[in-house]
Amino acid sequence: MAKVAMEMRETEMKEADMEKESSRSGGGMCKDLEDPLGPPTNPMVSALLTDMYQLTMAYAYWKAGKHNDRAVFDLLFRKNPFGGEYTVFAGLEECVRFAANLKFRDDDIEYLKTIMPSTCEDEFFVYLTTVDCSEVEIYAMPEGSVVFPRIPLMRIEGPLLIAQLLETTFLTLVNYASLVATNAARHRRVAGKDKMLLEFGLRRAQGPDGGISASKYCYLGGFDATSNVDAGRRFGIPVRGTHSHAFVSSFMSFDEITERSLPYAKGGSKCEDFVHLTQLWLGRMQEASSLREFFHETNHSELAAFTSYALAFPSAFQALVDTYNVMRSGIPNFCAVALALNELGYKALGIRLDSGDLSYFSIETRRFFRAVEKEFNVPGFGKLVIVASNDINEETLDALNKQGHEIDAFGIGTHLVTCFSQPALGCVYKLVEISGQPRIKLSEDVTKVTIPCKKQAFRLYGREGVALVDLLIGENEPYPKPGERILCRHPFSESKRAYVVPSRVEALYKCYWGGKSGRREPFPSLVHLRKRCLDQLAAMRTDHMRALNPTPYKVSVSGKLYDFIHFLWLNEAPVVELQ
Amino acid sequence: MAKVAMEMRETEMKEADMEKESSRSGGGMCKDLEDPLGPPTNPMVSALLTDMYQLTMAYAYWKAGKHNDRAVFDLLFRKNPFGGEYTVFAGLEECVRFAANLKFRDDDIEYLKTIMPSTCEDEFFVYLTTVDCSEVEIYAMPEGSVVFPRIPLMRIEGPLLIAQLLETTFLTLVNYASLVATNAARHRRVAGKDKMLLEFGLRRAQGPDGGISASKYCYLGGFDATSNVDAGRRFGIPVRGTHSHAFVSSFMSFDEITERSLPYAKGGSKCEDFVHLTQLWLGRMQEASSLREFFHETNHSELAAFTSYALAFPSAFQALVDTYNVMRSGIPNFCAVALALNELGYKALGIRLDSGDLSYFSIETRRFFRAVEKEFNVPGFGKLVIVASNDINEETLDALNKQGHEIDAFGIGTHLVTCFSQPALGCVYKLVEISGQPRIKLSEDVTKVTIPCKKQAFRLYGREGVALVDLLIGENEPYPKPGERILCRHPFSESKRAYVVPSRVEALYKCYWGGKSGRREPFPSLVHLRKRCLDQLAAMRTDHMRALNPTPYKVSVSGKLYDFIHFLWLNEAPVVELQ
Repeated sequence: MAKVAMEMRETEMKEADMEKESSRSGGGMCKDLEDPLGPPTNPMVSALLTDMYQLTMAYAYWKAGKHNDRAVFDLLFRKNPFGGEYTVFAGLEECVRFAANLKFRDDDIEYLKTIMPSTCEDEFFVYLTTVDCSEVEIYAMPEGSVVFPRIPLMRIEGPLLIAQLLETTFLTLVNYASLVATNAARHRRVAGKDKMLLEFGLRRAQGPDGGISASKYCYLGGFDATSNVDAGRRFGIPVRGTHSHAFVSSFMSFDEITERSLPYAKGGSKCEDFVHLTQLWLGRMQEASSLREFFHETNHSELAAFTSYALAFPSAFQALVDTYNVMRSGIPNFCAVALALNELGYKALGIRLDSGDLSYFSIETRRFFRAVEKEFNVPGFGKLVIVASNDINEETLDALNKQGHEIDAFGIGTHLVTCFSQPALGCVYKLVEISGQPRIKLSEDVTKVTIPCKKQAFRLYGREGVALVDLLIGENEPYPKPGERILCRHPFSESKRAYVVPSRVEALYKCYWGGKSGRREPFPSLVHLRKRCLDQLAAMRTDHMRALNPTPYKVSVSGKLYDFIHFLWLNEAPVVELQ
Repeated sequence: MAKVAMEMRETEMKEADMEKESSRSGGGMCKDLEDPLGPPTNPMVSALLTDMYQLTMAYAYWKAGKHNDRAVFDLLFRKNPFGGEYTVFAGLEECVRFAANLKFRDDDIEYLKTIMPSTCEDEFFVYLTTVDCSEVEIYAMPEGSVVFPRIPLMRIEGPLLIAQLLETTFLTLVNYASLVATNAARHRRVAGKDKMLLEFGLRRAQGPDGGISASKYCYLGGFDATSNVDAGRRFGIPVRGTHSHAFVSSFMSFDEITERSLPYAKGGSKCEDFVHLTQLWLGRMQEASSLREFFHETNHSELAAFTSYALAFPSAFQALVDTYNVMRSGIPNFCAVALALNELGYKALGIRLDSGDLSYFSIETRRFFRAVEKEFNVPGFGKLVIVASNDINEETLDALNKQGHEIDAFGIGTHLVTCFSQPALGCVYKLVEISGQPRIKLSEDVTKVTIPCKKQAFRLYGREGVALVDLLIGENEPYPKPGERILCRHPFSESKRAYVVPSRVEALYKCYWGGKSGRREPFPSLVHLRKRCLDQLAAMRTDHMRALNPTPYKVSVSGKLYDFIHFLWLNEAPVVELQ
């Protein structure tokens, strides 16, 4: 079956397909641990793709002889995006690829010398050429996890200078990836499991690789396919697309169609004049009493365009029907061509609507398709695919659900990839420990206070298998165990406490780079990340997930960590003197 | 003078510097016309970075034998972004680089074969390998121009299949570039000419090259510098950066500073214990009656961090002062170190504020600096640079102007690069003529109706040299002349007409690729594009530019084109029958 167009029945991917997809995307399910990690997907990611202050700080650390102090940084966000209560974590593999390949090349150094103050010592630049991540350890939640504010997504340990150098690039790689994956997941939730979701955002993304990242991470977040051919090739994402209004406008008459013959689907003989056949079918439709209410005359140049498109793609015919008038021209013209194809043994795929009242047009179109099925006795015609694609977002999907519609697939672009309703996720990268000493960053804004120390994170599940709370503890505290009564405290609010007896305890961090055990977690293929994400989202309590007034998921710290945070806080904060 | 930090006096770039910049950015002002254009800046831009439907249409055009029909496409937008009445055009050079290098490689073809229906003929793929832009002509307004809705930014002529293939990539390259350049220009306008504007957005951009594009086009739109080192290298943009909170948090005491000596600025002798000297100056400040009102005791680990940073950058000392408490700790600690540096003949640069009430803190900081200048008789100390950088956007800048402030430079990230208040510009690419026949795309929404025909565009200027109106005419109409009385009509609204007698007429399109004359417009360097943009913005009537209720700039068509649009419209639009 043609891959180019909608294949509604293939939405549910089977394990076998997943293996195929993963080999297509350039790696098996688990990459060989012995192999070095490949370079970042984007060749523009280099040691210099960072903020200048990372390099001035690097110099100052080096100059002070502090560059090898062992540091621990947390990468976290403070607020879920889009007014929601959950976030999807994405971008991890690209971070580790960056770290694995971090290296200042000679031309990097030459450029840095031109922008650093001339007082900087040459030995520093010599040192920079030796910098790599061999002493760095990266612990993180698995990519595709459902995650929450304040619980660090990643913990980076290493020599101060090097761990600090990773900040900007890691944030760049995680912020947008997680934001757009979350946006995709939210669109999937509103659209429902059975609809096909197509990402159409390349032309509105933040430049070329904004577009490529969008396609990749929207797929991770639950989309089915993309229009972006390059993303399809890079990541094995299914690719979809038919034609634009320009294609229809480019035709003026049937005379332009020179090659008019079309073989029957099963081979053997061929139809000598397919153009005539579509006109014949249009005539039959015009005469049918059951269809008369819908239309009188259709636009002939549109019929010529559809006919020509069908001659090119007889087994994947799908038409954009709103260039002139959806119900009076586009739909009857499409049906005439689809019926002609049917006569030759082909099955048309369906239509795309790109303007107007999508609820009304999809319902009317379905009614027309059913009338055609009945009138001409063509089984399945009533179920042809209706794709809609005009400025769709979460709210439109919700409104369509309420109004009722007959749309099978949505093509979503601008609002999805630009994350229109909130175009930034505010991940930050905070120093929490240095040379074994915990560090806290205070702020008059309590949400900006960081949780100090090297920590472990756990997700505690209740009897129903539903996640109840995430818990941070100090590195050296005993791990929580199923069946134990565990005190979970809000990190900053004294009165918010709960005892939890989990039926299951999940340690959230795994080692993705470095580490004493020598065992590094593998990176699953994109199709597996997508499955993880969809499974995790499906397992969450629905009140956390709803769009309107969702219940916040609880994130907490152990009693011991709570006491320690507040001990440090009192120690560091100045006592204000009112005068 | 150190390039690493603020250089307020260097904001106004002289011609000589511009030449230097332009050679740095990889080309003189006018690149050699004989040379082939270099590849797109982003190596991820390839023939496959496009929507699938461009390739299915390509096949259908080829199959119908229409692929060589001469087509004309317009690239335009319909509405200015950010509630404003102007837009800055950017991304042109990258489009032409893409066109100049368009080529399907063997591995592209191999991949396409796997995603196109198996019924596609092999000859098509052979044909695809021969596709290039040698028959394409690209006319456009110069990059960095101030532009308006409906007047096409670019006109692309060529064989239908090839001109169509350029759509998605051109839109991707122009949409975000123009959006973010416009956003930068808007920030510049509110901040005023004398403030330094620093782009700090890399970590919040849409992935790595979202960040690189942002830095490039924010500079074009009037920013002075970026924190993005790689963008600095690629485009010759000045790079700025100092240190983060983590740098301050990483210090615990003075004991960590092992190398304490610092040579005098003029050489010769050196100060053996600079750490002691900063502590000495802090003591002097604490004893000074004029400073007593401000502070009592400061955070010692912060002073250790500042001292260490000054030892690394004695001639470029700039400190982030809000890790503990701005007025009680950060500012006095900074001043102690700056005074110690001053004693050795160095001049500190200033401070950065990253939280709190920026108006209040900047005014208080200025007051403190002036008190120090007076107390210790250090000329210039009162004028040290104050940089502010916490979630700044157009509205914050406007509010700061109204409240009063003492900020010299703004570091702007998230809101700037994500274009938070409107993260997409809706450029479209419309077929307006094929084989010499004009095409119109109708829509029930009048703003979506396209203006048919191959057209020329002009900007008509009034006596004061101010732009009055942009005018579209049919390709073959006589060009408007200065001193002539010219009828300018709203393209869709019958009653909106004006006669204009321009004192100057500017033809807006220049040929950037192909064309019969063989003369191709050169691509100026980024620093020249920036100057063009700033000059054009400065020459616009201020009521078009203001943030609140700006006056729309008029865009119009000739009387002849008006009549033709409406003749076609009536011909194509179906007459609705009400029942």
